[in-house]
Amino acid sequence: MEKEENIRLIIIGGGEDKRTDKEILKKVVALSGGDQANIAVITTATNYPLEVGEEYKRIFYDLGVNKVDTINIASRKEANQRQVIRSLQNTNCIFFVGGDQLRISSILGGTEFHSFIKSRLEEGLIVAGTSAGASMMSEVMVVEGDEEDAPRKCTVKMAPGMGFLKGVIIDQHFNQRGRIGRLLGAVAQNPYALGIGIDEDTAIIINDKNELKVIGSGVITIVDGKNINYTNISEQYPDEPLAITNVNVHILPTRYKYSLVNRSAIVYEPQTKEEEDNK
Amino acid sequence: MEKEENIRLIIIGGGEDKRTDKEILKKVVALSGGDQANIAVITTATNYPLEVGEEYKRIFYDLGVNKVDTINIASRKEANQRQVIRSLQNTNCIFFVGGDQLRISSILGGTEFHSFIKSRLEEGLIVAGTSAGASMMSEVMVVEGDEEDAPRKCTVKMAPGMGFLKGVIIDQHFNQRGRIGRLLGAVAQNPYALGIGIDEDTAIIINDKNELKVIGSGVITIVDGKNINYTNISEQYPDEPLAITNVNVHILPTRYKYSLVNRSAIVYEPQTKEEEDNK
Repeated sequence: MEKEENIRLIIIGGGEDKRTDKEILKKVVALSGGDQANIAVITTATNYPLEVGEEYKRIFYDLGVNKVDTINIASRKEANQRQVIRSLQNTNCIFFVGGDQLRISSILGGTEFHSFIKSRLEEGLIVAGTSAGASMMSEVMVVEGDEEDAPRKCTVKMAPGMGFLKGVIIDQHFNQRGRIGRLLGAVAQNPYALGIGIDEDTAIIINDKNELKVIGSGVITIVDGKNINYTNISEQYPDEPLAITNVNVHILPTRYKYSLVNRSAIVYEPQTKEEEDNK
Repeated sequence: MEKEENIRLIIIGGGEDKRTDKEILKKVVALSGGDQANIAVITTATNYPLEVGEEYKRIFYDLGVNKVDTINIASRKEANQRQVIRSLQNTNCIFFVGGDQLRISSILGGTEFHSFIKSRLEEGLIVAGTSAGASMMSEVMVVEGDEEDAPRKCTVKMAPGMGFLKGVIIDQHFNQRGRIGRLLGAVAQNPYALGIGIDEDTAIIINDKNELKVIGSGVITIVDGKNINYTNISEQYPDEPLAITNVNVHILPTRYKYSLVNRSAIVYEPQTKEEEDNK
């Protein structure tokens, strides 16, 4: 899955390596045009926009891009201003930092800025995001939910996301924060949506055919509810633990692919380690 | 699933409630004969046999049993002594406390004490265990493995368990410690074994037809690998993240049943809350 494949989205599970090999951020740069890349870092999600913005600016410049702008849109008014959108005319990649996904959706959702990104996605703009910037990609996003606990019916809070990727629910910091329970609870509510849990320092790259490829040091966990034959989710007693049978789960590490259209893993055929390393 | 069903095993995911309603320990007592129950508490797993033994003794007496003996077998020599086994002649239930499952298997495995329990299981003795006392129930047990991390191929350490329950691998403190990754890794190594992750304050009660029933406040997570169509587990590079496709997962809370023979959930038909409460 290389540049000519029309990459649309790069969705990172948070905690991407910023110090050693920077595999994921390097890939963001490479897919955005390398030394031609113009990256806009959107710091809306975080309470520390200056610090976080400067950190990514430094890293992306270190990785040899042409230009990095940090854009801290902190109100809906700003998100509707023409000069913000004008400043993005030559941008190849819009990168959403982590923080609170509700800040992204409540400040940017339905604004001119949002419409601009959606229209440009069709024309080759890459949208990347990490942590909260990953969760907000889907039409419905997980806002909060119990971690490291038995899944319960109504403890997952969801909200409309930015809708860059349809038919999925994304969760991040996945194995690191014990979030399988909350993703199962989310998927049980409507198995139409495919659950994708992304580990820290791990990302999925999605092309215009809705195929994803995994990169990074962890795994993704795909929770497919299409064959669920029983769940108690819609019954009385909302605080009860969840019951759910026949969920299909896939675990995919780096280099594996998955088709969101067919809901099937495209299994990686291992080559020699050397061939891999040279890829 | 009541007493006449010939209950064999009560397997508790650790952290069972000892202060308020004590649902699980109450059930242990009821299934062991209530005020006729003679319970032997085996403290071999723990480094604090006196304290832990006394705590369970107090609770079981508070719950109205006839007799509680705490037995701290700390060496294989003791585990082969006739007087230990003689002291168990009238025992209805042998209860293994938590601690280190390798202490149970290395001190008790293959001894006269072990043979005695196995033979008496057929005749109506109930074997119960919590935490390490749950893990040791199966033929192969998880000893340690990464928690809250991406599943990796060879980070799950397993060892022979006490073999009271065949064809399963049990993990405990399951959602609370983010152990789905290590259980998936264990099951991938041989999908013949069914993975059962038991939450804290949650237990499975197993009858002589190899049906289990869930009780307690959390859920159990059943990981069935029989339909796995791809895994990288046996390939080179043992420290790589795990790939695995098409794992079947069930989440079952209190009152749900599952047949270990058919590998299928027996779905609980909800009644009114009142009927339930009176059960």
